[in-house]
Amino acid sequence: MTKLIQERINYMPGKKRYIFQRNDIFTFSMDAVLLAKFAKVPKEEGKIVDLCAGNGAVPLMLSLRTNAKIDAVEIQKELCDLAEKSVEYNSLEKQISVINQNIMKLSDEVKWGSYDLVTCNPPYYSINSHNRRNNNEKVSIARHELECTLEDVIRISSRLVKQTGRFAIVHRPERLVEIIMCMIKCSLEPKVLQYVYPKRKKEPNMVFIEAVRNGGPGIKTLEPIYVYDNEGHHYTEEFKNHYEQW
Amino acid sequence: MTKLIQERINYMPGKKRYIFQRNDIFTFSMDAVLLAKFAKVPKEEGKIVDLCAGNGAVPLMLSLRTNAKIDAVEIQKELCDLAEKSVEYNSLEKQISVINQNIMKLSDEVKWGSYDLVTCNPPYYSINSHNRRNNNEKVSIARHELECTLEDVIRISSRLVKQTGRFAIVHRPERLVEIIMCMIKCSLEPKVLQYVYPKRKKEPNMVFIEAVRNGGPGIKTLEPIYVYDNEGHHYTEEFKNHYEQW
Repeated sequence: MTKLIQERINYMPGKKRYIFQRNDIFTFSMDAVLLAKFAKVPKEEGKIVDLCAGNGAVPLMLSLRTNAKIDAVEIQKELCDLAEKSVEYNSLEKQISVINQNIMKLSDEVKWGSYDLVTCNPPYYSINSHNRRNNNEKVSIARHELECTLEDVIRISSRLVKQTGRFAIVHRPERLVEIIMCMIKCSLEPKVLQYVYPKRKKEPNMVFIEAVRNGGPGIKTLEPIYVYDNEGHHYTEEFKNHYEQW
Repeated sequence: MTKLIQERINYMPGKKRYIFQRNDIFTFSMDAVLLAKFAKVPKEEGKIVDLCAGNGAVPLMLSLRTNAKIDAVEIQKELCDLAEKSVEYNSLEKQISVINQNIMKLSDEVKWGSYDLVTCNPPYYSINSHNRRNNNEKVSIARHELECTLEDVIRISSRLVKQTGRFAIVHRPERLVEIIMCMIKCSLEPKVLQYVYPKRKKEPNMVFIEAVRNGGPGIKTLEPIYVYDNEGHHYTEEFKNHYEQW
Protein backbone atom coordinates (compact mmCIF):
# COMPACT_ATOMS: atom_id res chain seq x y z
CA MET A 1 0.00 0.00 0.00
CA THR A 2 1.46 3.38 -0.94
CA LYS A 3 1.10 6.27 1.47
CA LEU A 4 -0.55 9.38 0.11
CA ILE A 5 1.83 12.33 0.15
CA GLN A 6 -0.26 15.44 0.40
CA GLU A 7 2.03 17.73 -1.52
CA ARG A 8 0.66 20.97 -2.93
CA ILE A 9 1.86 24.23 -4.35
CA ASN A 10 0.64 27.58 -3.00
CA TYR A 11 1.09 31.24 -3.61
CA MET A 12 2.85 33.13 -0.84
CA PRO A 13 1.44 36.51 0.30
CA GLY A 14 1.82 39.09 -2.46
CA LYS A 15 1.61 36.30 -5.08
CA LYS A 16 5.18 36.79 -6.25
CA ARG A 17 6.48 33.49 -4.92
CA TYR A 18 5.19 29.93 -5.05
CA ILE A 19 5.89 27.43 -2.30
CA PHE A 20 5.66 23.65 -2.15
CA GLN A 21 4.04 22.37 1.02
CA ARG A 22 2.96 19.14 2.62
CA ASN A 23 -0.05 19.12 4.90
CA ASP A 24 1.21 16.00 6.62
CA ILE A 25 4.54 17.50 7.70
CA PHE A 26 4.82 21.26 7.26
CA THR A 27 3.12 24.34 5.88
CA PHE A 28 4.57 27.81 6.29
CA SER A 29 3.09 30.22 8.81
CA MET A 30 2.48 33.96 8.99
CA ASP A 31 5.44 34.18 11.38
CA ALA A 32 7.93 33.29 8.63
CA VAL A 33 6.52 35.86 6.23
CA LEU A 34 6.57 38.59 8.88
CA LEU A 35 10.14 37.68 9.82
CA ALA A 36 11.21 38.13 6.19
CA LYS A 37 9.64 41.57 6.31
CA PHE A 38 11.01 42.52 9.75
CA ALA A 39 14.68 41.71 9.11
CA LYS A 40 16.95 44.48 7.82
CA VAL A 41 18.52 43.01 4.68
CA PRO A 42 21.78 43.81 2.91
CA LYS A 43 20.45 45.24 -0.34
CA GLU A 44 22.83 44.13 -3.07
CA GLU A 45 25.90 42.26 -2.03
CA GLY A 46 26.15 40.22 1.10
CA LYS A 47 25.25 36.87 2.58
CA ILE A 48 22.22 35.74 4.54
CA VAL A 49 21.60 32.44 6.28
CA ASP A 50 18.20 31.25 7.44
CA LEU A 51 18.29 28.60 10.17
CA CYS A 52 15.46 26.12 10.81
CA ALA A 53 14.38 27.06 7.31
CA GLY A 54 11.55 24.53 7.00
CA ASN A 55 10.19 24.51 3.46
CA GLY A 56 12.01 27.78 2.71
CA ALA A 57 9.36 30.42 3.35
CA VAL A 58 11.76 32.98 4.86
CA PRO A 59 14.41 32.74 2.09
CA LEU A 60 11.74 32.78 -0.64
CA MET A 61 10.29 36.03 0.71
CA LEU A 62 13.68 37.57 1.54
CA SER A 63 14.65 37.12 -2.11
CA LEU A 64 12.01 39.73 -2.96
CA ARG A 65 13.87 42.31 -0.87
CA THR A 66 17.53 41.66 -1.60
CA ASN A 67 19.99 40.31 -4.15
CA ALA A 68 22.21 38.90 -1.40
CA LYS A 69 22.97 35.20 -1.50
CA ILE A 70 20.81 33.19 0.90
CA ASP A 71 21.66 29.86 2.54
CA ALA A 72 18.66 27.95 3.87
CA VAL A 73 19.64 25.40 6.54
CA GLU A 74 17.13 22.74 7.50
CA ILE A 75 17.59 19.47 9.38
CA GLN A 76 14.69 17.53 7.82
CA LYS A 77 15.33 16.01 4.42
CA GLU A 78 11.68 16.13 3.34
CA LEU A 79 11.47 19.86 4.06
CA CYS A 80 14.71 20.48 2.15
CA ASP A 81 13.21 18.64 -0.80
CA LEU A 82 10.17 20.91 -0.72
CA ALA A 83 12.40 24.00 -0.39
CA GLU A 84 14.54 22.82 -3.35
CA LYS A 85 11.44 22.39 -5.49
CA SER A 86 10.23 25.88 -4.60
CA VAL A 87 13.65 27.39 -5.34
CA GLU A 88 13.62 25.80 -8.79
CA TYR A 89 9.99 26.64 -9.48
CA ASN A 90 10.67 30.31 -8.71
CA SER A 91 13.97 30.19 -10.67
CA LEU A 92 16.01 31.24 -7.64
CA GLU A 93 18.80 28.65 -7.92
CA LYS A 94 21.43 31.36 -8.25
CA GLN A 95 20.33 33.14 -5.10
CA ILE A 96 19.13 30.48 -2.66
CA SER A 97 21.07 27.37 -1.60
CA VAL A 98 19.23 24.76 0.40
CA ILE A 99 21.51 22.98 2.88
CA ASN A 100 20.26 19.82 4.56
CA GLN A 101 22.18 20.00 7.82
CA ASN A 102 21.67 19.85 11.55
CA ILE A 103 22.61 23.32 12.80
CA MET A 104 24.33 21.62 15.75
CA LYS A 105 26.80 20.04 13.33
CA LEU A 106 27.33 22.63 10.64
CA SER A 107 30.10 21.78 8.19
CA ASP A 108 32.23 23.97 5.96
CA GLU A 109 29.36 24.75 3.64
CA VAL A 110 28.45 27.57 6.00
CA LYS A 111 31.34 29.76 7.10
CA TRP A 112 31.51 31.09 10.66
CA GLY A 113 31.55 34.87 11.04
CA SER A 114 30.69 35.47 7.40
CA TYR A 115 27.01 36.43 7.29
CA ASP A 116 25.55 39.93 7.19
CA LEU A 117 22.24 38.59 8.45
CA VAL A 118 21.06 35.42 10.18
CA THR A 119 17.31 34.83 10.34
CA CYS A 120 15.52 32.16 12.33
CA ASN A 121 11.96 31.06 12.95
CA PRO A 122 12.85 28.29 15.42
CA PRO A 123 10.71 25.68 17.18
CA TYR A 124 8.73 27.65 19.77
CA TYR A 125 8.11 25.14 22.51
CA SER A 126 10.58 23.65 24.95
CA ILE A 127 10.50 19.89 25.35
CA ASN A 128 8.87 20.31 28.74
CA SER A 129 6.25 22.73 27.44
CA HIS A 130 2.63 21.96 28.21
CA ASN A 131 1.91 22.74 24.59
CA ARG A 132 0.68 19.50 23.11
CA ARG A 133 3.30 17.47 21.29
CA ASN A 134 2.26 16.25 17.87
CA ASN A 135 2.37 12.48 17.35
CA ASN A 136 3.99 13.14 14.03
CA GLU A 137 7.73 13.37 14.75
CA LYS A 138 8.32 15.57 11.68
CA VAL A 139 5.78 18.10 12.85
CA SER A 140 7.17 17.96 16.38
CA ILE A 141 10.74 18.73 15.27
CA ALA A 142 9.54 21.97 13.69
CA ARG A 143 7.48 22.96 16.74
CA HIS A 144 9.35 21.62 19.75
CA GLU A 145 12.98 21.93 20.77
CA LEU A 146 13.79 18.31 20.06
CA GLU A 147 16.84 18.86 17.89
CA CYS A 148 18.00 22.27 19.09
CA THR A 149 17.09 24.66 21.90
CA LEU A 150 16.60 28.41 21.80
CA GLU A 151 20.03 28.81 23.37
CA ASP A 152 21.60 26.61 20.67
CA VAL A 153 20.00 28.65 17.91
CA ILE A 154 21.21 31.93 19.37
CA ARG A 155 24.73 30.67 20.10
CA ILE A 156 25.10 29.31 16.58
CA SER A 157 23.63 32.45 15.01
CA SER A 158 26.11 34.56 16.93
CA ARG A 159 28.97 32.48 15.51
CA LEU A 160 27.63 32.70 11.95
CA VAL A 161 27.13 36.43 11.84
CA LYS A 162 29.88 38.93 10.99
CA GLN A 163 31.11 41.51 13.48
CA THR A 164 28.30 44.09 13.60
CA GLY A 165 26.13 41.75 11.50
CA ARG A 166 22.47 41.27 12.35
CA PHE A 167 20.37 38.45 13.75
CA ALA A 168 16.58 38.48 13.45
CA ILE A 169 14.32 36.00 15.22
CA VAL A 170 10.60 35.50 15.74
CA HIS A 171 9.35 33.78 18.88
CA ARG A 172 6.57 33.58 21.46
CA PRO A 173 6.41 36.68 23.70
CA GLU A 174 6.56 34.60 26.88
CA ARG A 175 10.15 33.65 26.05
CA LEU A 176 11.37 37.24 25.66
CA VAL A 177 13.50 37.24 28.81
CA GLU A 178 15.20 33.99 27.86
CA ILE A 179 15.90 35.31 24.35
CA ILE A 180 17.42 38.53 25.67
CA MET A 181 19.56 36.67 28.23
CA CYS A 182 20.89 34.26 25.58
CA MET A 183 21.58 37.08 23.15
CA ILE A 184 23.58 39.11 25.66
CA LYS A 185 25.51 35.98 26.65
CA CYS A 186 26.42 35.52 22.97
CA SER A 187 27.46 39.16 22.31
CA LEU A 188 24.28 39.86 20.37
CA GLU A 189 22.80 43.16 21.56
CA PRO A 190 19.01 43.36 21.14
CA LYS A 191 18.31 46.54 19.15
CA VAL A 192 14.77 46.32 17.73
CA LEU A 193 11.62 44.76 19.13
CA GLN A 194 8.19 44.43 17.55
CA TYR A 195 5.06 42.74 18.84
CA VAL A 196 2.25 41.27 16.80
CA TYR A 197 -1.18 41.22 18.42
CA PRO A 198 -3.96 39.04 17.00
CA LYS A 199 -6.36 41.96 17.58
CA ARG A 200 -7.05 44.90 19.89
CA LYS A 201 -7.34 44.20 23.60
CA LYS A 202 -5.53 40.89 23.22
CA GLU A 203 -2.10 39.90 24.37
CA PRO A 204 0.56 39.63 21.65
CA ASN A 205 1.27 36.19 20.22
CA MET A 206 4.51 36.90 18.37
CA VAL A 207 7.58 38.97 19.08
CA PHE A 208 10.29 39.92 16.59
CA ILE A 209 13.74 40.80 17.84
CA GLU A 210 16.72 42.07 15.92
CA ALA A 211 20.16 41.99 17.51
CA VAL A 212 23.49 43.35 16.35
CA ARG A 213 26.73 41.54 17.10
CA ASN A 214 28.69 43.69 19.55
CA GLY A 215 26.08 46.46 19.23
CA GLY A 216 25.80 49.26 21.78
CA PRO A 217 23.03 49.37 24.39
CA GLY A 218 19.52 50.74 23.81
CA ILE A 219 16.57 48.98 22.19
CA LYS A 220 13.89 50.48 19.97
CA THR A 221 10.34 49.12 20.19
CA LEU A 222 8.43 49.58 16.96
CA GLU A 223 4.72 50.33 16.61
CA PRO A 224 2.60 47.20 17.18
CA ILE A 225 1.06 45.14 14.40
CA TYR A 226 -2.59 44.07 14.65
CA VAL A 227 -3.54 41.15 12.46
CA TYR A 228 -7.33 41.11 12.71
CA ASP A 229 -9.96 43.81 13.09
CA ASN A 230 -11.97 44.15 16.30
CA GLU A 231 -14.41 41.43 15.26
CA GLY A 232 -11.50 39.14 14.55
CA HIS A 233 -12.74 38.03 11.14
CA HIS A 234 -10.73 40.13 8.70
CA TYR A 235 -7.19 41.38 8.39
CA THR A 236 -6.85 45.05 9.32
CA GLU A 237 -6.12 47.32 6.36
CA GLU A 238 -2.67 48.05 7.79
CA PHE A 239 -1.87 44.40 8.24
CA LYS A 240 -2.98 43.58 4.71
CA ASN A 241 -0.59 46.19 3.34
CA HIS A 242 2.22 44.99 5.54
CA TYR A 243 1.68 41.30 4.81
CA GLU A 244 0.73 41.30 1.17
CA GLN A 245 2.84 44.04 -0.36
CA TRP A 246 6.22 42.79 -1.54
CA MET B 1 14.18 89.43 48.48
CA THR B 2 12.00 86.38 49.09
CA LYS B 3 11.83 83.70 46.44
CA LEU B 4 8.36 82.79 45.20
CA ILE B 5 7.57 79.15 45.96
CA GLN B 6 5.08 78.00 43.38
CA GLU B 7 3.26 75.50 45.55
CA ARG B 8 -0.20 74.36 44.54
CA ILE B 9 -2.68 71.63 45.34
CA ASN B 10 -4.21 69.49 42.60
CA TYR B 11 -6.65 66.67 42.20
CA MET B 12 -5.16 63.39 41.08
CA PRO B 13 -6.94 61.36 38.32
CA GLY B 14 -10.25 60.04 39.62
CA LYS B 15 -10.50 63.03 42.00
CA LYS B 16 -10.22 60.89 45.10
CA ARG B 17 -6.81 62.16 46.14
CA TYR B 18 -5.28 65.63 46.40
CA ILE B 19 -1.59 66.24 45.85
CA PHE B 20 0.70 69.13 46.73
CA GLN B 21 3.04 70.10 43.93
CA ARG B 22 5.65 72.67 43.11
CA ASN B 23 6.06 73.83 39.54
CA ASP B 24 9.64 74.86 40.21
CA ILE B 25 10.80 71.45 41.39
CA PHE B 26 8.38 68.61 40.75
CA THR B 27 4.89 67.76 39.54
CA PHE B 28 3.69 64.17 39.23
CA SER B 29 3.43 62.51 35.82
CA MET B 30 1.07 60.05 34.19
CA ASP B 31 3.78 57.40 34.61
CA ALA B 32 3.36 57.40 38.41
CA VAL B 33 -0.42 57.04 38.21
CA LEU B 34 -0.17 54.19 35.71
CA LEU B 35 2.44 52.44 37.86
CA ALA B 36 0.04 52.56 40.82
CA LYS B 37 -2.54 50.90 38.59
CA PHE B 38 -0.17 48.36 37.04
CA ALA B 39 1.31 46.96 40.27
CA LYS B 40 -0.36 43.94 41.86
CA VAL B 41 -1.06 45.00 45.43
CA PRO B 42 -1.50 42.97 48.63
CA LYS B 43 -5.16 43.68 49.38
CA GLU B 44 -5.47 43.90 53.15
CA GLU B 45 -2.41 43.15 55.18
CA GLY B 46 1.10 43.59 53.93
CA LYS B 47 3.79 46.16 53.35
CA ILE B 48 4.64 48.23 50.32
CA VAL B 49 7.60 50.52 49.75
CA ASP B 50 7.79 53.10 46.97
CA LEU B 51 11.31 54.20 46.07
CA CYS B 52 12.14 57.54 44.40
CA ALA B 53 8.70 58.55 45.64
CA GLY B 54 8.90 62.22 44.62
CA ASN B 55 5.89 64.10 45.99
CA GLY B 56 4.14 60.81 46.76
CA ALA B 57 1.95 60.24 43.71
CA VAL B 58 2.41 56.45 43.63
CA PRO B 59 1.66 55.87 47.36
CA LEU B 60 -1.33 58.24 47.25
CA MET B 61 -2.89 56.31 44.38
CA LEU B 62 -1.91 52.89 45.75
CA SER B 63 -3.81 53.73 48.92
CA LEU B 64 -7.00 53.63 46.85
CA ARG B 65 -6.34 49.97 46.01
CA THR B 66 -5.06 48.49 49.24
CA ASN B 67 -5.05 48.77 53.02
CA ALA B 68 -1.41 47.66 53.22
CA LYS B 69 1.04 50.00 54.91
CA ILE B 70 3.08 52.05 52.46
CA ASP B 71 6.53 53.54 52.98
CA ALA B 72 7.45 56.35 50.60
CA VAL B 73 11.21 56.86 50.33
CA GLU B 74 12.50 60.05 48.73
CA ILE B 75 15.95 61.65 48.83
CA GLN B 76 14.88 65.28 48.40
CA LYS B 77 13.67 67.06 51.53
CA GLU B 78 11.41 69.48 49.64
CA LEU B 79 9.60 66.61 47.91
CA CYS B 80 9.16 64.77 51.20
CA ASP B 81 7.60 67.93 52.64
CA LEU B 82 5.12 68.02 49.78
CA ALA B 83 4.37 64.32 50.20
CA GLU B 84 3.84 64.80 53.97
CA LYS B 85 1.39 67.61 53.32
CA SER B 86 -0.55 65.46 50.86
CA VAL B 87 -0.64 62.53 53.28
CA GLU B 88 -2.11 64.76 55.97
CA TYR B 89 -4.51 66.52 53.63
CA ASN B 90 -5.88 63.14 52.50
CA SER B 91 -5.90 61.84 56.11
CA LEU B 92 -3.61 58.95 55.26
CA GLU B 93 -1.17 59.29 58.15
CA LYS B 94 -1.99 55.79 59.38
CA GLN B 95 -1.29 54.18 56.02
CA ILE B 96 1.54 56.14 54.40
CA SER B 97 4.90 56.99 56.02
CA VAL B 98 7.16 59.42 54.23
CA ILE B 99 10.85 58.64 54.73
CA ASN B 100 13.43 61.23 53.72
CA GLN B 101 16.35 58.97 52.90
CA ASN B 102 18.84 58.27 50.14
CA ILE B 103 17.99 54.75 48.93
CA MET B 104 21.76 54.11 48.74
CA LYS B 105 21.98 54.52 52.51
CA LEU B 106 18.76 53.07 53.85
CA SER B 107 18.61 52.80 57.62
CA ASP B 108 16.59 50.55 59.91
CA GLU B 109 13.38 52.39 59.19
CA VAL B 110 12.98 50.14 56.15
CA LYS B 111 13.60 46.46 56.79
CA TRP B 112 15.36 44.29 54.21
CA GLY B 113 13.38 41.35 52.85
CA SER B 114 10.14 42.50 54.43
CA TYR B 115 8.03 44.03 51.65
CA ASP B 116 5.30 42.34 49.63
CA LEU B 117 5.68 44.93 46.92
CA VAL B 118 8.31 47.47 45.93
CA THR B 119 7.31 50.11 43.37
CA CYS B 120 9.61 52.56 41.65
CA ASN B 121 9.31 55.34 39.07
CA PRO B 122 13.03 56.11 38.92
CA PRO B 123 14.96 58.82 37.08
CA TYR B 124 14.83 57.78 33.41
CA TYR B 125 18.00 59.19 31.96
CA SER B 126 21.57 58.09 32.54
CA ILE B 127 24.06 60.82 33.36
CA ASN B 128 25.54 60.48 29.90
CA SER B 129 22.16 60.61 28.20
CA HIS B 130 21.75 63.14 25.41
CA ASN B 131 18.48 64.07 27.00
CA ARG B 132 18.88 67.66 28.09
CA ARG B 133 19.82 68.13 31.73
CA ASN B 134 17.76 70.68 33.57
CA ASN B 135 19.70 73.58 35.12
CA ASN B 136 17.63 73.12 38.23
CA GLU B 137 19.44 70.47 40.27
CA LYS B 138 16.23 69.42 42.04
CA VAL B 139 14.54 68.69 38.73
CA SER B 140 17.65 66.92 37.46
CA ILE B 141 17.80 64.53 40.43
CA ALA B 142 14.29 63.33 39.63
CA ARG B 143 15.01 62.92 35.92
CA HIS B 144 18.68 61.90 35.68
CA GLU B 145 20.62 59.18 37.45
CA LEU B 146 22.61 61.60 39.58
CA GLU B 147 21.95 60.00 42.95
CA CYS B 148 21.21 56.41 41.95
CA THR B 149 21.39 54.35 38.77
CA LEU B 150 18.90 51.88 37.36
CA GLU B 151 21.09 49.06 38.63
CA ASP B 152 21.14 50.57 42.15
CA VAL B 153 17.37 50.83 42.19
CA ILE B 154 16.89 47.24 41.11
CA ARG B 155 19.54 45.84 43.46
CA ILE B 156 18.03 47.68 46.42
CA SER B 157 14.48 46.70 45.48
CA SER B 158 15.52 43.09 45.32
CA ARG B 159 16.91 43.33 48.86
CA LEU B 160 13.77 45.04 50.18
CA VAL B 161 11.27 42.59 48.77
CA LYS B 162 10.23 39.35 50.49
CA GLN B 163 10.93 35.95 48.96
CA THR B 164 8.37 35.68 46.12
CA GLY B 165 7.43 39.33 46.70
CA ARG B 166 6.88 41.65 43.72
CA PHE B 167 8.74 44.57 42.21
CA ALA B 168 7.02 46.92 39.75
CA ILE B 169 8.85 49.57 37.76
CA VAL B 170 8.05 52.02 34.97
CA HIS B 171 10.78 53.12 32.58
CA ARG B 172 11.60 54.16 29.03
CA PRO B 173 11.25 51.27 26.54
CA GLU B 174 14.78 51.78 25.19
CA ARG B 175 16.18 50.58 28.51
CA LEU B 176 14.24 47.30 28.55
CA VAL B 177 17.27 45.09 27.99
CA GLU B 178 19.23 46.76 30.76
CA ILE B 179 16.26 46.42 33.13
CA ILE B 180 15.86 42.72 32.38
CA MET B 181 19.59 42.05 32.76
CA CYS B 182 19.72 43.84 36.13
CA MET B 183 16.60 42.06 37.36
CA ILE B 184 17.93 38.61 36.52
CA LYS B 185 21.25 39.47 38.14
CA CYS B 186 19.30 40.37 41.32
CA SER B 187 17.07 37.24 41.39
CA LEU B 188 14.04 39.22 40.20
CA GLU B 189 12.33 37.29 37.42
CA PRO B 190 10.42 39.54 34.98
CA LYS B 191 6.86 38.18 34.83
CA VAL B 192 4.60 40.88 33.35
CA LEU B 193 5.27 43.52 30.71
CA GLN B 194 3.02 46.29 29.43
CA TYR B 195 3.70 49.03 26.93
CA VAL B 196 2.05 52.42 26.73
CA TYR B 197 1.87 54.03 23.30
CA PRO B 198 1.10 57.74 22.94
CA LYS B 199 -1.18 56.85 20.00
CA ARG B 200 -1.61 54.38 17.13
CA LYS B 201 1.29 53.96 14.72
CA LYS B 202 3.71 55.44 17.23
CA GLU B 203 6.47 53.77 19.19
CA PRO B 204 5.76 53.19 22.89
CA ASN B 205 7.10 55.76 25.35
CA MET B 206 6.66 53.83 28.60
CA VAL B 207 7.12 50.25 29.66
CA PHE B 208 5.88 48.68 32.88
CA ILE B 209 7.58 45.58 34.22
CA GLU B 210 6.66 43.43 37.16
CA ALA B 211 9.16 40.96 38.55
CA VAL B 212 8.85 38.30 41.22
CA ARG B 213 11.74 37.49 43.53
CA ASN B 214 12.92 33.97 42.67
CA GLY B 215 10.02 33.58 40.23
CA GLY B 216 10.00 30.90 37.54
CA PRO B 217 10.68 31.69 33.88
CA GLY B 218 8.08 32.95 31.39
CA ILE B 219 6.84 36.51 30.90
CA LYS B 220 3.33 37.66 30.03
CA THR B 221 2.90 40.72 27.83
CA LEU B 222 -0.40 42.50 28.44
CA GLU B 223 -2.54 44.28 25.86
CA PRO B 224 -1.09 47.68 24.95
CA ILE B 225 -2.41 50.97 26.30
CA TYR B 226 -3.00 53.87 23.91
CA VAL B 227 -3.17 57.28 25.54
CA TYR B 228 -4.46 59.51 22.75
CA ASP B 229 -6.84 58.99 19.85
CA ASN B 230 -5.60 58.97 16.25
CA GLU B 231 -5.65 62.75 16.04
CA GLY B 232 -3.63 62.90 19.24
CA HIS B 233 -5.83 65.52 20.93
CA HIS B 234 -8.01 63.49 23.29
CA TYR B 235 -7.59 60.52 25.57
CA THR B 236 -9.00 57.32 24.10
CA GLU B 237 -12.15 56.07 25.84
CA GLU B 238 -10.22 53.03 27.10
CA PHE B 239 -7.42 55.14 28.47
CA LYS B 240 -9.81 57.46 30.23
CA ASN B 241 -11.40 54.51 32.00
CA HIS B 242 -8.04 53.06 32.90
CA TYR B 243 -6.55 56.34 34.12
CA GLU B 244 -9.48 57.98 35.81
CA GLN B 245 -11.36 55.13 37.48
CA TRP B 246 -10.11 54.41 40.99
